[in-house]
Amino acid sequence: MDYLKNMIRSQGRVIGTDVLKVDSFLNHQVDPHLMEGIGREFATRFAGEKITKVLTIESSGIAPALFTGLFLDVPVVFAKKTASRNLDEDTFQAPVYSFTRGGEYIIRVSKRYLHADDRILFIDDFLAQGRALVGLLDIANQAGASVAGAGIVIEKGFQDGGKRIREMGIRVESLAIITSMSEEESRIQFSGDAG
Amino acid sequence: MDYLKNMIRSQGRVIGTDVLKVDSFLNHQVDPHLMEGIGREFATRFAGEKITKVLTIESSGIAPALFTGLFLDVPVVFAKKTASRNLDEDTFQAPVYSFTRGGEYIIRVSKRYLHADDRILFIDDFLAQGRALVGLLDIANQAGASVAGAGIVIEKGFQDGGKRIREMGIRVESLAIITSMSEEESRIQFSGDAG
Repeated sequence: MDYLKNMIRSQGRVIGTDVLKVDSFLNHQVDPHLMEGIGREFATRFAGEKITKVLTIESSGIAPALFTGLFLDVPVVFAKKTASRNLDEDTFQAPVYSFTRGGEYIIRVSKRYLHADDRILFIDDFLAQGRALVGLLDIANQAGASVAGAGIVIEKGFQDGGKRIREMGIRVESLAIITSMSEEESRIQFSGDAG
Repeated sequence: MDYLKNMIRSQGRVIGTDVLKVDSFLNHQVDPHLMEGIGREFATRFAGEKITKVLTIESSGIAPALFTGLFLDVPVVFAKKTASRNLDEDTFQAPVYSFTRGGEYIIRVSKRYLHADDRILFIDDFLAQGRALVGLLDIANQAGASVAGAGIVIEKGFQDGGKRIREMGIRVESLAIITSMSEEESRIQFSGDAG
């Protein structure tokens, strides 16, 4: 995914030591063609895994998850972060601590849409500390579903979420792994970079 | 969009007199192929309108908006409902009252992603009272952008939002307009139905 890395390099804005803003193409303004390419890539990497459902969290995970579901030909379920009278009362729930929001929230998935015979692929835009992924894993476990792995658009390789999730035996496929980044000139280094 | 109407009839659950749950294919579990068809239909209906940007609100609007942007070959921007340190401080803002959430929230769009030379197409999953659409219109007006219209997946034709928005001179294209619905047997009638 050199195209993705080039977009991160050219449009990403680094703030401080750990915030990377990619809201021009990923999580506020969205480039639909990039999302299509990302979905196709995840579907290719997890082909043969007999996935029955893609699971993500609203809102930034929806775009890459949607195209992944399209190419895998399976439904996409997005966990909800807010209570609503439109959501079923009978839900799987898990707490997630968010550093960007500065607090804990509850993610919820209706029990209608996850079952013990499901084989799940998680999709998310970012993997940093891995809190969201642990929450999704908790929900999959509650449903008794099996987990094929996680497709991540951007992994902050300098934080420990990826390591922690992989040590749990979960296959993680990240399209761009950032090994270091600096606010000066928004300098960003990826895993696999030559220099 | 007979396919959409059939899905609403077969899978929609009516609760009370005004809640229609379509969370098996539209706003919790999502059918990516249906979303692709919806996006293609909106792109066809608004072809020739020289749209430069699709604007929606997280989270349920993202899926239909994303495919509309794909087929119109333009970026998709989703207004945020929650404050986050990932969002720019310099935003257009508008208040929206939500009946499903039972309160008012603020939608925000970074000023980086809407400009006076933009021509905007709004996309949303539902149109009922029209509050969300009025909020998006407010934000488009703040940006000085022009508005091509609104593409709505399901309009509750028995509520007055559609009438109000059309009276403001906005073109509204709704793929399914419900004229009446009843909790008994989840009976749903559409505009254009014979009986």
